[in-house]
Amino acid sequence: MITLYRMPSPNVLKILLMLEEAGLPYELKHVAVLRGEGQVSWFRALNPFGKVPVIIDRQAGEERVFFESGAILIYLAETYAPALLPAHGPARWRTLEWLAAQVAYAGPMLGQMNHFQLVPSEANSYSAARYRDQAQLVYRHFDDRLADVPWLGGEHYSIADIAMHPWTAYLVRHGFSEAD
Amino acid sequence: MITLYRMPSPNVLKILLMLEEAGLPYELKHVAVLRGEGQVSWFRALNPFGKVPVIIDRQAGEERVFFESGAILIYLAETYAPALLPAHGPARWRTLEWLAAQVAYAGPMLGQMNHFQLVPSEANSYSAARYRDQAQLVYRHFDDRLADVPWLGGEHYSIADIAMHPWTAYLVRHGFSEAD
Repeated sequence: MITLYRMPSPNVLKILLMLEEAGLPYELKHVAVLRGEGQVSWFRALNPFGKVPVIIDRQAGEERVFFESGAILIYLAETYAPALLPAHGPARWRTLEWLAAQVAYAGPMLGQMNHFQLVPSEANSYSAARYRDQAQLVYRHFDDRLADVPWLGGEHYSIADIAMHPWTAYLVRHGFSEAD
Repeated sequence: MITLYRMPSPNVLKILLMLEEAGLPYELKHVAVLRGEGQVSWFRALNPFGKVPVIIDRQAGEERVFFESGAILIYLAETYAPALLPAHGPARWRTLEWLAAQVAYAGPMLGQMNHFQLVPSEANSYSAARYRDQAQLVYRHFDDRLADVPWLGGEHYSIADIAMHPWTAYLVRHGFSEAD
């Protein structure tokens, strides 16, 4: 059994999707991060950053705790679902590269876009425009990639697609359409 | 020979440090990203995002092109410097976890802090304060980790440390001191 500590968030959805794709048994535990529960000591012992997702994997007879969605996806693929992260060669490299592009660029920029949609925009017109521009670039770059190859890693579905999928739901909420 | 496409930036410094640590032969090519050279077609063929670092590794008799510093570090470690990313078990998982924390959280947040130090602050007092708070959290969390263990991955120096090192130089520039 794998425990997934969660709240409603795209980074948590990545892991939920991965657990389903890998056919792993799991349970969900809600963490009220927005009400401060991420900062209580029992949770910070699992993840010092106080954020979800966090997983505990007890399937090997020991407690394996992981935070950071990108690292969790690599761990789960290497341990349970090798087809979702090829072991060698270009298919592995392209998968890791687009996974990195999602976690290090797309996710943070779309996350800032989310934030500045929620705070008063008149006082933050510069930031709202900055992250709208960044979000548009992100969507365009990933869309361009998928015009060239069927999946982000190339020929096969992988953890790079799993990482990006939950964020595609924000396209319309962020004020764009598939025609943009 | 490995070609590293570069500009002065902490994400490029990660790769320079890695090439030195791995003892690999390399050459540097400057890309004037801030003057738009990242968007010209020859460079976007290497990295659709138009950003540095990018490497071309010709050592295997073929051209292997990589972008995204986190993915480049994993590739170089797995291919040439396995001691910097253990192959199995907790040492691997902790290294990937803290590498992910650097590329997906520390880097993007410290990068936004850099940005809002450069744009007029009166119009962006909210954003300046937001990213100052985020930067302080990042420095504190990584400092706390290194109070518990000698290296970010645990007992051994790894690509997680290589990824974080260039950003530590920003501590003072961001208005903090080691006493904070």
